Amino acid sequence: MKFSPALESLIEALRCLPGVGPRSAQRMSLHLLERDREGAETLAQSLTEAVEKIGHCSRCRNFAEETLCEICADPRRDRSTVCVVESPADVLALEQSASYRGVYFVLMGHLSPIDGIGPDDIGLDVFQRQVTDGEVKEVILATNPTVEGEATAYFLTDMLAGTGISLTRIAHGVPLGGELEYVDGSTLAHALSGRVPVDAQR
Amino acid sequence: MKFSPALESLIEALRCLPGVGPRSAQRMSLHLLERDREGAETLAQSLTEAVEKIGHCSRCRNFAEETLCEICADPRRDRSTVCVVESPADVLALEQSASYRGVYFVLMGHLSPIDGIGPDDIGLDVFQRQVTDGEVKEVILATNPTVEGEATAYFLTDMLAGTGISLTRIAHGVPLGGELEYVDGSTLAHALSGRVPVDAQR
Ligand SMILES: [Zn+2]
Ligand SMILES: [Zn+2]
Repeated sequence: MKFSPALESLIEALRCLPGVGPRSAQRMSLHLLERDREGAETLAQSLTEAVEKIGHCSRCRNFAEETLCEICADPRRDRSTVCVVESPADVLALEQSASYRGVYFVLMGHLSPIDGIGPDDIGLDVFQRQVTDGEVKEVILATNPTVEGEATAYFLTDMLAGTGISLTRIAHGVPLGGELEYVDGSTLAHALSGRVPVDAQR
Repeated sequence: MKFSPALESLIEALRCLPGVGPRSAQRMSLHLLERDREGAETLAQSLTEAVEKIGHCSRCRNFAEETLCEICADPRRDRSTVCVVESPADVLALEQSASYRGVYFVLMGHLSPIDGIGPDDIGLDVFQRQVTDGEVKEVILATNPTVEGEATAYFLTDMLAGTGISLTRIAHGVPLGGELEYVDGSTLAHALSGRVPVDAQR
């Protein structure tokens, strides 16, 4: 005995969401069908639209619904400074700190040899071509202060050595082992203004 | 600064799921877009199909994709015994116990005057007409052992008084295989006051 086919399919499909196991998926399905069918329809439409409309910015790799994201398309942003982050959530967190006027490069991950994720998988080949075009003066490394984030930052440090580009790492205020997207705006503002040349950390 | 419109819509739409707050919705959205766009499309389709296809069984009110659910449509089920439960998940749990061959009536909730949920809202008007048609010999009350579930059971007891229908309540107590020290106090109190002579259990 199981639920009806369409209900079983829905329970199974909900498990694509992170942190949703069989029990949660069942509870969610029954809730939607018993109490929020309108919500279910809206969610279906939002999912379809998101997948259709959301691609990646051709410059910074962040999510975007046009060729360029809002930040890259904004002529008031300072293109000589590029902040490298792991995820779109990090861009949002930094933007909400309202302390940064440069542009970003979004890795959509970090180096992780154990998962087979190398430099090209996080766009570092693209990034290398971009930053050596002469316009970029400073690269701020804002990968997460985790093992993988640090390894990614070291890789970038090596990659940009000898290019003459000033390389900095946000440092003060971000707790080690913490994830950037959960840090409050003023702490992030402090970490940005207190950035130090990478050589000084060694 | 926010995410792009389609992404913000998706984050908002995911909040229709029980237990999903703004942070979880953001994490889920980014996960789907970064790593599981196929899962997102399947989920959208499953939601649409579930809302379109799944209605209620005209007899027992359980979810069904036809006029009658599988159980009500099964001629081998004993229609003289009706088990009253609160939710489709309860039907599934009882079916999985493989110990019941009667039919069900699914309230899709319980009496809750504080939320304005009265007898008609949980189908008791329909139920009263069904059980007094002469075919039903026994009604098993299997509402949850909560304040609302007990109140609903009491209401049904009053409703069926004098109809000649045998009325029973599923036994509550310490779960088999459960360890006494982990069973909550009110369950233990109930198990103690509802103790039965050992011979009667055989
Ligand atoms: Zn961009
Ligand atoms: Zn039915």
